[in-house]
Amino acid sequence: MKRTDHGLTWLPFLPQPPVHTLKTPRDMARAELDQARELLSGRQVDIDVNPDLGDGFTLTQDGAIVHLCGGESGVLYGAYRLLMALKARQELPLGSHAPYYALRMLNCWDNAEGTIERGYSGRSLFFEDGHLDYDPVRMRQLGRMLASVGINVLCINNVNVHNPAHKLIEEEWLPQLSDLASIFRPFGVRMMLSIDYAHPLRHGLDTADPLDARVAAWWQERADIVYRYVPDLAGFLVKADSEHRPGPFTYGRTHADGANMLARALAPHGGRLIWRCFVYNCLQDWRDTVTDRPMAAYQHYAHLDGQFEDNVILQIKNGPFDFQVREPVSPLFYAMPKTNLALEVQLAQEYTGQQIDIYAMGPMWKEIFDDLPPQRVMAMAAVSNLGRDANYTGHPFAAVNLFAYGMTAWDPSTDPAALIRLWCRLTYDLEQAQEGALHALLMGSRRVYEKYTAPLGLCWMVNPHGHYGPSPSGYEYALWGTYHKANRDAVGVDRTEKNGTGMTRQYPEPLRSLYENLDTCPDLLKLFFHRLRYDYVMADGRTLIQRIYDDHFEGYDETEALAQTLRALDLPSPDREVALERMDLQLKNAREWRDVTNTFFYRLSGAKDAKGRRIYD
Amino acid sequence: MKRTDHGLTWLPFLPQPPVHTLKTPRDMARAELDQARELLSGRQVDIDVNPDLGDGFTLTQDGAIVHLCGGESGVLYGAYRLLMALKARQELPLGSHAPYYALRMLNCWDNAEGTIERGYSGRSLFFEDGHLDYDPVRMRQLGRMLASVGINVLCINNVNVHNPAHKLIEEEWLPQLSDLASIFRPFGVRMMLSIDYAHPLRHGLDTADPLDARVAAWWQERADIVYRYVPDLAGFLVKADSEHRPGPFTYGRTHADGANMLARALAPHGGRLIWRCFVYNCLQDWRDTVTDRPMAAYQHYAHLDGQFEDNVILQIKNGPFDFQVREPVSPLFYAMPKTNLALEVQLAQEYTGQQIDIYAMGPMWKEIFDDLPPQRVMAMAAVSNLGRDANYTGHPFAAVNLFAYGMTAWDPSTDPAALIRLWCRLTYDLEQAQEGALHALLMGSRRVYEKYTAPLGLCWMVNPHGHYGPSPSGYEYALWGTYHKANRDAVGVDRTEKNGTGMTRQYPEPLRSLYENLDTCPDLLKLFFHRLRYDYVMADGRTLIQRIYDDHFEGYDETEALAQTLRALDLPSPDREVALERMDLQLKNAREWRDVTNTFFYRLSGAKDAKGRRIYD
Repeated sequence: MKRTDHGLTWLPFLPQPPVHTLKTPRDMARAELDQARELLSGRQVDIDVNPDLGDGFTLTQDGAIVHLCGGESGVLYGAYRLLMALKARQELPLGSHAPYYALRMLNCWDNAEGTIERGYSGRSLFFEDGHLDYDPVRMRQLGRMLASVGINVLCINNVNVHNPAHKLIEEEWLPQLSDLASIFRPFGVRMMLSIDYAHPLRHGLDTADPLDARVAAWWQERADIVYRYVPDLAGFLVKADSEHRPGPFTYGRTHADGANMLARALAPHGGRLIWRCFVYNCLQDWRDTVTDRPMAAYQHYAHLDGQFEDNVILQIKNGPFDFQVREPVSPLFYAMPKTNLALEVQLAQEYTGQQIDIYAMGPMWKEIFDDLPPQRVMAMAAVSNLGRDANYTGHPFAAVNLFAYGMTAWDPSTDPAALIRLWCRLTYDLEQAQEGALHALLMGSRRVYEKYTAPLGLCWMVNPHGHYGPSPSGYEYALWGTYHKANRDAVGVDRTEKNGTGMTRQYPEPLRSLYENLDTCPDLLKLFFHRLRYDYVMADGRTLIQRIYDDHFEGYDETEALAQTLRALDLPSPDREVALERMDLQLKNAREWRDVTNTFFYRLSGAKDAKGRRIYD
Repeated sequence: MKRTDHGLTWLPFLPQPPVHTLKTPRDMARAELDQARELLSGRQVDIDVNPDLGDGFTLTQDGAIVHLCGGESGVLYGAYRLLMALKARQELPLGSHAPYYALRMLNCWDNAEGTIERGYSGRSLFFEDGHLDYDPVRMRQLGRMLASVGINVLCINNVNVHNPAHKLIEEEWLPQLSDLASIFRPFGVRMMLSIDYAHPLRHGLDTADPLDARVAAWWQERADIVYRYVPDLAGFLVKADSEHRPGPFTYGRTHADGANMLARALAPHGGRLIWRCFVYNCLQDWRDTVTDRPMAAYQHYAHLDGQFEDNVILQIKNGPFDFQVREPVSPLFYAMPKTNLALEVQLAQEYTGQQIDIYAMGPMWKEIFDDLPPQRVMAMAAVSNLGRDANYTGHPFAAVNLFAYGMTAWDPSTDPAALIRLWCRLTYDLEQAQEGALHALLMGSRRVYEKYTAPLGLCWMVNPHGHYGPSPSGYEYALWGTYHKANRDAVGVDRTEKNGTGMTRQYPEPLRSLYENLDTCPDLLKLFFHRLRYDYVMADGRTLIQRIYDDHFEGYDETEALAQTLRALDLPSPDREVALERMDLQLKNAREWRDVTNTFFYRLSGAKDAKGRRIYD
C-alpha cells in the first residue's frame, strides 16, 4: 500500500476535481459530488441553494435521491460531510446542520521571508524571500482541506508582523493578495490579515495614537483600499503591546481605544477586528514575587468589558500561560460577558512535541469545553501546524489536529474520540484491529506526553527559545515570568487567595473554590495552583515526589508501548517511514525528559524512588 | 582632554609615521625614531642591524647617543621599547634583550563572512561578506600595535574554517593575501592561516587520510603554491577532530599521523604546523560518569609524545576545560617532554565578561607560569580580542590584555603589575593618584569577576551558547561534558584518584598530591577537583556554602567600588563614556550573578546566610 498524493492528508480517497475554473462553493460542491459517483454508488444528489442558510445545510434522503439544501458555502460543507460519511461507512448525516461558531479561523504564523514562527512542517506555503510566493495547486488543496472540516477564515501572516509583511495591506502586494483570495473563495474560505499596529508611522504620521483623528483616518482609508482588492476579507488580526510589539500603551490609551479605532475602519466593510489578549510583562525580574504572569490577561482586559465595538473579538489563548501541556482555562473567559470572545488553541506543537512526538489534541479541547461552556465564546481560532512539507504537517499524524479542530469549531460538543476515529478511517482505512490500535494510540498520546514532560501542571520546564526537550531550570531566572521555584523542600507557585498570588480570585465559583482548595484541586493541576512539599501525600496515598517519579517512568514505558503499536501498523508509505523515524526521536526525547526531570527532583529532594528504579545522581 | 585617534590604543603619544612606503622593520624603526624627536629630547639613536640577532636587540648609551643594535626585527622592537620607556618616564631599557619565545602568536577567530567567533569588538578587520576586505590604514595600525609589544605571528582566520575561508590557500585569494602579508612584513609580523583538514575533499580527492600518498602530495603542492605568494608564512594552524571539525580520526589515524603529514609539506619552506589539542567528546551523555571532559586532552595526546615532526607544535589551552575564569594548568603540559608545545590563552573575554566586564588577565597568566615553568613550552598563542570597533577592543581597558600578552610572550617573567602600570601610563598618562587608582582597579578586576561568577573553581555556570550571564544549571544536562552535579547536600565532581575520576593522576608530583589532597588543594580550586558538602569547613572556619555566599556578596560590593573608582577617573573621551556605559552593564551583570548563584545554592542547601544578607527564595 502506497500513498500517491501526500497533499491530500485525510482526503486521499477523493481525487481532486478540476477546480481551477470554479468560482463559487456551490459549483465546487457540484464538482466534488460529480466525480465521487463511485462513492455515491447509484445515489443522486440534488443541490438546492438557499443563501439565507449561510454555512448551514440540510440533508434528506428520498430513495436513491439525496437532497442537499444549504447556503452558498453550506452546500459545500454538506457535500464533504456526505462524502466523508460514505467513505467512513457511517450513516448518512441526515438532518439540519449549522456551525456553532460563525468564525472558524486558522492563524498561520508565517513570515514574509518564508520562515514560520513555531513551524515544524517546513517553510511557508505563502511566502518566500520577502514576497508572496505560493503554488496555486497547493493553495487549492489547502482550501479544500479547510473546507472539508468547515474552517472558513485563514490568516496567512504571523501576528508578529515583521518587515516586509506589513505590505500585505499596501498597493504593492494587494493585487497578488487578491488573486490568492480568489483561489480560496470557492472553498468558502475568507482571508484575514495580521497587521502592524504601528503601521501609520511608516507612512509619514508621527503617531499611532488611536485617539488621534489622523490615525483613525489613515486606517479608514487603508481598510477602504484593502477591501477594494479583497471585498470579503474577514478582517484584521492584531497583537499589540506584547513581546515588544507596538500598541496603544505607547500613547497612554487602552486596548479598547486601540481595538475600537481599527474596528470602526473595518465596520463599513463587514470586517472583524480580532484583538489578541496575550499581553504580559516579558521583562519580569525573577526576584519579583508579586507579579504573576498567568494573571496578566485578566488584569489587562477584564475591566474593559463592555467597552468594545460590536465587531471587535478578543482572542484569548485557552490557558492563562501559553499553550502549555496542561493549564486551567483562562479566567478571562468568565470575566467579560459583554464582549465578543474567541478561544485560541495551538495546533503547531510548540510545547507539545513539535510534530516529532505524537500528540492528538482533541481530548485536551474536550477538557477545555468541560470547564468552559461553548456559549461563553463566539468564535474559535487555531495557530496553524501547516507548512510546505509534502504532507503539510511534518508528522503525518499531526494532521489529525487540524481535522479535529475544524470539526470541533463547527460543533464543540463532538466527541473527540469519534473525530479521531473518523480521521483514521478517512486517512488510512485500516482493517478493524489496526484502526483500533491507531485510535487508541492517538487518544492516549497527550497523556503519555504529559507524563514524561510536565508534572501535575508544572509548566515551562523546557529548553528556552526552542521549547523542545527538558530544561527544569531553563526559565527559572529568565525575564519571562515563568518560575517554579523548586527548592530542597517544595516546588510550585502558590496562586491561592489565602497564601499566594491570589490568581484563584480571578475565577468565578465553583472554579474558584475548586482550585483554591488543595483537596479539591484536580491532581493534574495541583502544581499549577499550589506550592507543595515533596512529601505532600496525594489522595491515592502517594507522595508528590513519588507521583512525579511514577509519571515519568510510566511516560517513558508507555512511549515504548506506543512505538510497539506503531511498528505493527500497516501504514502506507511514506507515512510509515516518517512516523517510525520520528518515533525514534520521541523515544530518545521521552528518555531524556524522564531522566532529567527525575534527576532534577532527586537532587533537590533526596527522596529515593519507592520502586527502586534507576534515577541518575 | 580628548583622544583624537582611537586607532592607536596604547600608542596615542606616538603619531603614526608615513609608513606605507617602508619595506622592512629596520626602515620602520628609523621612521618611528625620526618622528619621535621630541620624545628623544636631543638624544640621537644609531641603528646597527645584525641579522644574526633576529628579534633580539641591545641598547647602550654613550652620552646623548643611544646605540641600538639588533636583528632585522630586533631593531624595531628595540625602538618601541626605547620610546615607550621614554614616554613612561622609566629608565632606558639598556642592555641585551631577546624574546623568551620565538613565536608570539595572535589567533583571530574571524570568519570570511565578516563575523568573529566569540568576538566582542565588532566585525572582522580582515573579512566581509565572504571575501578578504580590509582597510590598509587600520592594517598598518594593527601591525604597529602588534610590533610594539613583540607579537610576530598573526593568524587571521578562525580555527573553525567555515566556507569560504578555505580559499585563503587557493589561487583565487592568494594575491590579495600576499598584499596583506606585505603590509604586515615591515612590522616583523608574519602571517599564519587556519586550514580545513578536509580541504583535499573539495578538490577531487575522495579521502583526507594522512597516510594516503595522494593526500600528502596534495598538501605538498598546496604549500608550495601558498609559499610562492607569502614566502615568510609562519605556517598552518589546525583544529581537527574537535567540535564537529574533520580530522584524522575519520580515517583511523592518529593526530601524529595528521600533523606530521601537514608538517612535512611546510618543512621545505620553514613553516610550522600548529596543531590544537582542544579535542574532547562534545556529544557526551550527562548520565555518563566515567568520561571526564577536562581529562580529554591528556588522554588524546600524552601517549603520542615523541612522535611528532620537529616543526609541529601542539597548542594547548592553559586549562584543561576551556578558558574558564579559574582552572588548574592543563596536565598535558607536563606529559610531553619530547614534543614542542605552545601555551594558548584567550584575550577574547568569552567566559570572562565579554569586554563588558573589566577583566585584566596579567595576574591570571602569572598564576599559570607559577605552576608551569616557562621552559615547558616553546611558544605562546592568544585568541584575539580585536575587531572593527574604533578602539579595536570594544572596552578600552580590554586593550591592556593584548598589550600584556605580547610583553608576557616576550618575557614570561615580567611582573604583570608593571605591565599594567606601563599600559596605563602609555594609554592615559594620568596624574599619579589617578594612575594608581586605575592600576589597582585593573589589578583587582579578575578576582572581583571571579567572586561574583565562578565559586572556587566551579566552572560552566553560564548561559549556554552565549556564555554571558549566570545559568547555574545551563550546562547540567547538556552534551558538553561540563557538569557540577549540585544536589541538596553537595556540589562538584570528585576528580581525585582515590574516589573520583582520577584526573589528579594526570599531574606529576607535587601537583598530583597537592590537588588530590583536600587539605592542600588551593581553596580557589577546591570545587574543580573535589565534591564538597555545603557544610564542609574550610581552613578559615567558614563553611563552603558561607564562602560561596560571601564571595558573591563581596563580588558585587567590590564591583560597586570599581564603579566608584571609574567615575572618579579623568579618562579621555570617548573612553570615559564607553567605560562608564559598560560599567552600568557590569553592575547589572554582577547583581544578577550574585543573586542567581546565591539563590541557586540557597534553594539546594537551605542554608541561611550567616550575615543575614538578602538571598531571594
